[in-house]
Amino acid sequence: MKRTTYAGLIDESYLDQTVTLSGWVQKRRDFGDLIFVDLRDREGIVQLTFNATNQSALTVAEDMRSEYVVAVTGKVIKRDASQINDKIKSGAVEVDVTSAKILATSKTPPFYIEDNVNANEELKLQYRYLDLRRPEMQKNLRVRSKIMSSAMHFMDTHDFINIETPILAKSTPEGARDYLVPSRVFPGSFYALPQSPQLFKQLLMGAGFDRYFQIARAFRDEDLRGDRQPEFTQMDVETSFMTADEIRELVNEWVKAMMNDVVNFDLDTTTIPTLTWQESMDRFGTDKPDLRIAYEIHDLSDTVSNSEFGVFANAVKAGGVVKAIAVPGGADHYSRKDIDKLAQYIERFGAKGLAWLKVTDDGLTGPIAKFFKPEDSQALIAGVGGQTGDLLLFGAGRNDVVSATLDYLRRQTAADLDLVDKTNPWAFAWIVDWPLFEYSEDFDRWIAAHHPFTMPNEEDLHYLDDGEDPHKAHAQSYDLVLNGYELGSGSIRIHRMDIQEKMLKALGFTPEKAHEAFGFLLEGMEFGFPPMGGIALGLDRLAMLLAGQENIREVIAFPKNSRATEPMTEAPTRVETKQLNELGLFVPEAE
Amino acid sequence: MKRTTYAGLIDESYLDQTVTLSGWVQKRRDFGDLIFVDLRDREGIVQLTFNATNQSALTVAEDMRSEYVVAVTGKVIKRDASQINDKIKSGAVEVDVTSAKILATSKTPPFYIEDNVNANEELKLQYRYLDLRRPEMQKNLRVRSKIMSSAMHFMDTHDFINIETPILAKSTPEGARDYLVPSRVFPGSFYALPQSPQLFKQLLMGAGFDRYFQIARAFRDEDLRGDRQPEFTQMDVETSFMTADEIRELVNEWVKAMMNDVVNFDLDTTTIPTLTWQESMDRFGTDKPDLRIAYEIHDLSDTVSNSEFGVFANAVKAGGVVKAIAVPGGADHYSRKDIDKLAQYIERFGAKGLAWLKVTDDGLTGPIAKFFKPEDSQALIAGVGGQTGDLLLFGAGRNDVVSATLDYLRRQTAADLDLVDKTNPWAFAWIVDWPLFEYSEDFDRWIAAHHPFTMPNEEDLHYLDDGEDPHKAHAQSYDLVLNGYELGSGSIRIHRMDIQEKMLKALGFTPEKAHEAFGFLLEGMEFGFPPMGGIALGLDRLAMLLAGQENIREVIAFPKNSRATEPMTEAPTRVETKQLNELGLFVPEAE
Repeated sequence: MKRTTYAGLIDESYLDQTVTLSGWVQKRRDFGDLIFVDLRDREGIVQLTFNATNQSALTVAEDMRSEYVVAVTGKVIKRDASQINDKIKSGAVEVDVTSAKILATSKTPPFYIEDNVNANEELKLQYRYLDLRRPEMQKNLRVRSKIMSSAMHFMDTHDFINIETPILAKSTPEGARDYLVPSRVFPGSFYALPQSPQLFKQLLMGAGFDRYFQIARAFRDEDLRGDRQPEFTQMDVETSFMTADEIRELVNEWVKAMMNDVVNFDLDTTTIPTLTWQESMDRFGTDKPDLRIAYEIHDLSDTVSNSEFGVFANAVKAGGVVKAIAVPGGADHYSRKDIDKLAQYIERFGAKGLAWLKVTDDGLTGPIAKFFKPEDSQALIAGVGGQTGDLLLFGAGRNDVVSATLDYLRRQTAADLDLVDKTNPWAFAWIVDWPLFEYSEDFDRWIAAHHPFTMPNEEDLHYLDDGEDPHKAHAQSYDLVLNGYELGSGSIRIHRMDIQEKMLKALGFTPEKAHEAFGFLLEGMEFGFPPMGGIALGLDRLAMLLAGQENIREVIAFPKNSRATEPMTEAPTRVETKQLNELGLFVPEAE
Repeated sequence: MKRTTYAGLIDESYLDQTVTLSGWVQKRRDFGDLIFVDLRDREGIVQLTFNATNQSALTVAEDMRSEYVVAVTGKVIKRDASQINDKIKSGAVEVDVTSAKILATSKTPPFYIEDNVNANEELKLQYRYLDLRRPEMQKNLRVRSKIMSSAMHFMDTHDFINIETPILAKSTPEGARDYLVPSRVFPGSFYALPQSPQLFKQLLMGAGFDRYFQIARAFRDEDLRGDRQPEFTQMDVETSFMTADEIRELVNEWVKAMMNDVVNFDLDTTTIPTLTWQESMDRFGTDKPDLRIAYEIHDLSDTVSNSEFGVFANAVKAGGVVKAIAVPGGADHYSRKDIDKLAQYIERFGAKGLAWLKVTDDGLTGPIAKFFKPEDSQALIAGVGGQTGDLLLFGAGRNDVVSATLDYLRRQTAADLDLVDKTNPWAFAWIVDWPLFEYSEDFDRWIAAHHPFTMPNEEDLHYLDDGEDPHKAHAQSYDLVLNGYELGSGSIRIHRMDIQEKMLKALGFTPEKAHEAFGFLLEGMEFGFPPMGGIALGLDRLAMLLAGQENIREVIAFPKNSRATEPMTEAPTRVETKQLNELGLFVPEAE
C-alpha cells in the first residue's frame, strides 16, 4: 500500500479519486457498523469512514486506537452536509475506506496530541516525539526549515560560499563560558565548542573567499533563560571590501526575501529606520526597541530641575535624570494597586519607587500632583506629549536605571493596554554607532560591547592611543532589531594588527596574553588581510518570531530544559570509568 | 573605490570598460616607468599595468609587494599580441590602472601562494589562511559549497524538512569512541558529541515529520587516517512509509541532480548496478568495489583442489579458498622485484606470500608454472579469464584474507598499469542485502554491521528468536559506492520494540543495559512509530571525489592533523584551572 498523497492535502479536488494514505489515528468514533477515524499526517487531518460494505477494513478499524499508525486505501467522497467541518482543509470530504492495515500500535500517550493541551512542560520534553506530533509544533519546525531554505537560496544566488568551520575549536577568553571537550591524544588539554565562528570567518576573509555564509551551531555554557539554549544556530555572513552601509543594504535584501518566502510578507526595506545607539537609548531606554509601540521616553530633567517635588529636583542635582512616558488611555486602566505592582517589579532594575500622574482635562491628578503648579503641570504634560486620559510614569535617578525602568514600563503598559500596533506586524530597525566598550558589572571592568574584533569609527581610532580614553570610542557596528528583539549583530572588523593590538590592550590584555589567546589572528593580519565585515542573525529567535511563538524551545526539535538537560535522553549522563581514564580525567563525584 | 567586478572574471567582453578591482598582489614586475602586477581574487587573476601616464598610481605600485591587498581603478585594454596568455581567462587583456590604493601590507609569506607548491604540510596547516588562497583550495571549497547548495535545493523541492538535531547529546554504546563534554550543572556527568543524528532522526519520524533532511556535523574520537577527521559532515536523510527500493530511487534522483549541478555530468542512474554484498565480496573482495576496473576476482578453489602445487591444494583442504585476478598486460610490466614488493605489502592483510604466473602464447611461466600440467594450466587460464600477456595473481587461504589481498592487488595493479576506465569517470554502485552482524576482531564479539537499528530482512526475522543463530540474518541495508569509496550507508530501521529488543539482545545487551542506553527509543516505539528508512551521505568524501582530490583535508577549511590538533590555533589547549573547577574536573597532568 504505497501512499499516493498526504491526508492533510485532501480536499474537493480529490473527489471520486482512489487514494492511499498513511498516518496516525487522531480520533476514532465507533458506531458498530460504521466507524469514523480522523487520520493525521504532517499536512493535516482527513476523516476516514469504515462500514460494512468493506467488512475486512471495518474489522481492522475495530482494532484501531489513538496514535496507531495505519495505511488505508479508499475513495474520496462528499461528506453529508450536516457533517461539513469548515475548520479543516478536508472538511467537505471523507475517505470511504476499502482496505486498511495497522502498521504499528500505540499505548495510550501520556498526554493527548493536540495544541494547547494542558500537560506538564517537563513531561512534554520527556516525550518530545509525541509533543512534536502537534500541528503547531509541526508548523513551527517548518517555519524554521523555510527560513534556512530561503537563506541558503539567497546566499547561493548572491555568490556566497557556504563554508563549514570547526566545532572542535580553541578556548579563547573574552566571551561567555566555553563548553570544553577533553582531548584523548593530549590528556589535560581541551577543545572548546565555538561561541561563534567569528575568528574562523575572519580568517576565511584573510584567505580570500570574499563572501562566506554558514548556518552555524554555536555554544555557551551560561545559565538559561527563555530565549537562551546551550546550543543555538546562527546564520553567519562575512564579506570583504564592503562598507557597513553596503552590508546593511545586503542584509535588507536578504530579510526582504526571507519575509516573502517564509511569511508571505512584502517588506518595504526603505522604511526600516536606522537609529544611532544613543538615539535608541534616549527614545526607548533600550538598544532593541519595539517600534510597534508609539509612545517614547521623554527627558524632563531640565523641566523639573527646580521642581518642588524633591525626588525629581534631587535626582537632577545629583547628576541623574528624570524621564517619563505617557501611556495613552492609561489613566482609566491602572488602579493605584496596579501601579504599586509595577513599582514593585521595577525594583529589580534598581528603581526606588514609581512616580506617576494622570492627565485630566483639568490638569494632573495623583498623589504627587500637589507639587506641580498649573504652569509646571502644563510644561510637564507638553514635555512628555501627554493627552487627557494618559498615565504618566516617571523614572528619576541614574540614567541606566531610568532607561531600564522606562523600557520595561513602556513594553508592559503597551501589552496591558493592547497598544502594540498591529498594522505594522514586523517592525525592523537598525541600531548603529555603538560604543566600542561597555562597562560590565559582572566582570567589574570594561569589555567589548560587541567583541574584541570590532573596528572603531575611523575618527575615533585615536582614542585607542596611549594617553587617550579608549572608552570614548564608538564602533562600526550595527544590530538588526525586530519587534523588540535583537535578531543579529554585525560590524566592520579590525583587519590591521596595530589596531587589533591596541584594542586588546584597552581590554586589559598584556602583549603576551594577547598573543597566547589570539596570536594566530594577529599573525594572520600581517599577511594581507582585506577590509571585512559581516553579521550573524540568530535563527532560533527569528524562527520564534516568524512562527508567532514566545519561547525558542518551541522552534527547536530537541531543546534542553532550564538545567541544560534533555529530559528524553536524560543527557548529560554518567559515563564509564574507562572513558574517563582514556581522557586522563578524574571526576571526584563520579566515584 | 567600490569594486565593480572580480579580477578573475575580466575578459575581452570588458574591453574599454573602466573597472574597480580589489584583491591580492600575486606577482609584481618592475621596469621603472612600467610596472606589471598580477592581481588575484577568488575568481582568478588579471594583469594590471602601471605607467608614467598615471604617475600617482605608478608611485603606489612601486610600494606593492606579494600578498599586499590593493584596490585599483583602470580601463580594460588589449594586451600586446606577444603578451597574450592562453592559460587564464583574462589572458588577452590587461587593466591600465589610473588610480590605486594599498589596503593592507603583507610580510613575505612562509611559502609561495601557488598550486603544487613544495611546502611542509604542517606549515601549510599552521598558515592555513595562506594555503587557502591557492586557486586549487578555492576551487575545492567551492565544490563542497555547491554540493551543499544542490542538496538543499533538491531536498527542499522534494518536501523534505530541514531539522537540526542536538550536538550536545547522550553518550551511547555501540559505536566508535565518543567525544565527551563535561556538564557544569551536574559535575561528573557528560554530554557526548553525536556520532550521527541516527537516533534523533528516528525520533523525528516517530514525531511524524515524514521527510527529514540535515547537513549534520558528526564526531568520532578515533585515530585518524587520510579519509578520517574527528569531525565530519553527513548529508542526512530519513523518510517514513517508503521501501528500500523507493529510498534508493530517491537517492538516485538526488545524486543525478548533484552530478549535474556540481560537475556538470549527466549521470544515467538506470545504469547504476545493484550488487548484493555477497556478490560484491565474491567478485571484488570488498564491499566498496571500484567498478572502473574491469578485471574481477575468480574462485579457482575447485580447479586447484587437487593441484600438485601444495600451497593451493592445502589451502582448499584446510577449508580455505584459492582465488585469482588476471591483470591485463601485467606480464611485461611487473618484474620479479616488483612482485616481491607487492608480496611484502600484502602481509598486512595476513597473506603469507604471493603466488603468480604469467600467461604466454605457450601457456604459463613463472616459478610455480612447473606444478601445472598443460591441461591444468588451460583450466586455470580459463577459470581466471586470462589472456596472453596477463599477470595472474593468487590468494590462497582464509577467505577474508584472500579477499582483502586481491581487492588491494586489483586496485594497485590497475593504478600501476593505468587500467582505470576513464570513459566511466563516475562509477556508482549500490551494495545491498548486507549481513546484519559482522564479527569484530577489535571487540572480539559480534557487532552490528551497520548499526543496531537496522531492520533485518522480513524472511530473516526468525533468526533473532531464541534458539536460532542471529548471525545468519541479512539486513534491509544499502550502501552507495563511488569509484571504490563508500559514499553513504542507509537502511530500513526497526520501528517495533519487540524486534529492537531482540536485536539488542543478539548484540549482548541485557534488558537492563538496553533500557539504560536506548530506553527512550524503545519507549518511543510503543507509541506508534511508522516504518522508516534513510541514508547518510558523507559530504567530506563526496567533495573530495568531485573535486578530484585524494585527501579529505583538501576539502575542509580548517582540518585537524593526524594527532587531531589544529596547527593554526593550536587547539586543543590547556585551560584555566578555574574552568576545570567549575566542571568539577581534576586533571592530574594539568597541575
